[in-house]
Amino acid sequence: MENRSYEPEKTAKDVSLQELRDRLAEFARVRGWEQYHSPRNLLLALVGEVGELSEIFQWKGEVERGLPNWSAAEREHLEEEVSDVLLYLVRLADVCGLDLGHAAVSKLVKNANKYPVAALTRALP
Amino acid sequence: MENRSYEPEKTAKDVSLQELRDRLAEFARVRGWEQYHSPRNLLLALVGEVGELSEIFQWKGEVERGLPNWSAAEREHLEEEVSDVLLYLVRLADVCGLDLGHAAVSKLVKNANKYPVAALTRALP
Amino acid sequence: MENRSYEPEKTAKDVSLQELRDRLAEFARVRGWEQYHSPRNLLLALVGEVGELSEIFQWKGEVERGLPNWSAAEREHLEEEVSDVLLYLVRLADVCGLDLGHAAVSKLVKNANKYPVAALTRALP
Amino acid sequence: MENRSYEPEKTAKDVSLQELRDRLAEFARVRGWEQYHSPRNLLLALVGEVGELSEIFQWKGEVERGLPNWSAAEREHLEEEVSDVLLYLVRLADVCGLDLGHAAVSKLVKNANKYPVAALTRALP
Repeated sequence: MENRSYEPEKTAKDVSLQELRDRLAEFARVRGWEQYHSPRNLLLALVGEVGELSEIFQWKGEVERGLPNWSAAEREHLEEEVSDVLLYLVRLADVCGLDLGHAAVSKLVKNANKYPVAALTRALP
Repeated sequence: MENRSYEPEKTAKDVSLQELRDRLAEFARVRGWEQYHSPRNLLLALVGEVGELSEIFQWKGEVERGLPNWSAAEREHLEEEVSDVLLYLVRLADVCGLDLGHAAVSKLVKNANKYPVAALTRALP
Repeated sequence: MENRSYEPEKTAKDVSLQELRDRLAEFARVRGWEQYHSPRNLLLALVGEVGELSEIFQWKGEVERGLPNWSAAEREHLEEEVSDVLLYLVRLADVCGLDLGHAAVSKLVKNANKYPVAALTRALP
Repeated sequence: MENRSYEPEKTAKDVSLQELRDRLAEFARVRGWEQYHSPRNLLLALVGEVGELSEIFQWKGEVERGLPNWSAAEREHLEEEVSDVLLYLVRLADVCGLDLGHAAVSKLVKNANKYPVAALTRALP
């Protein structure tokens, strides 16, 4: 099933972290790549992808929200690098045995308590 | 609503990328932080969190999958840093106008085509 | 000698890469830290420091050359983080057995050949 | 002078931070690249090079000091990426108006005071 040719899925359906986790685990398993997916290997791969993401922005000066004036090719390149970072992050969390979705929501809640709206006047972002 | 005290959600329910995106957008909006959330600001914040994630692993030598022998405090610290990376990545994609879930699934499909299972003998991971 | 108290050296004398390399090697040796200074440990420590460097710039929007309007404390913080990146980089090169000064000059020469001045009209930076 | 062809310098002479700084400043000046060398542009370029450095180590598991068993091509690639990180770091410090050599030596002294040899029994690295 994994080795037939794929067409990108064009639907904008939502994607869950557990779905990504499971697809990545299967992706590694069927290719025999689990042996390479140690936590520090994946962490360094993540750093590599963050580097590629940074390269897209490196000579641009300040960039406006929504990326006006970026070409379709530039946007697609950005989508790929943002995705690579996400995929390695999800895979890293998985091999570490973490529940990334639960962790992320807990962190959001912690941040909400740390920066209560009522107390905000001019706090740092 | 945002400024009451929160309790972390203990349920292990799955979380979607759109849910995280929407919660982060609301988080920034009610705090007046949208002005700080330019693409390059968020990218540098992401790099900062990747640095904190790396610090957790920096003196440990090779780390086994599942993190045997890590203390509960170390695991919790790791969960927080992995989450911080994820949250800034989701927010970065949002302010750039990208559909992160769609992009990630498309990249998975592209990778599957790039590394077909049948052809794999000793490809790099 | 290493365990007396030091005063920062105020002279602006130049510093060579070999001097830094030797001081860092001695620093690690007398503290018994050579056991921790494996290439990947040092690389992750470097990534951690790059993260701290990025945090200094993360919410500032575009920053002008020379850092006008930065406080003395901000400049000092920046000096420390830039130095931390340099020190781990020099140490990483050393434990890998590289001659960093020679490598850097060779790369400069290679770059000069790659981007010859005469041919430049509107090349990317 | 800058647009003749260069041969890599084979002598292993030491290199100073000021020499690198001055060569990089001249390199940018004669190419008209100073306009691109803002602090945050250079910082993101540095992050990009740290990513390329990490990619070299990403699938290797733990790597021994001295890099036994690495091919000449792998070593040369590593020399180039380590150099790229150094060159952007030196350039970043310069456009920020910092004296990198002075800062690095001051940080070394500060670290020596922070981790005095006599007091060390089992401090973290």
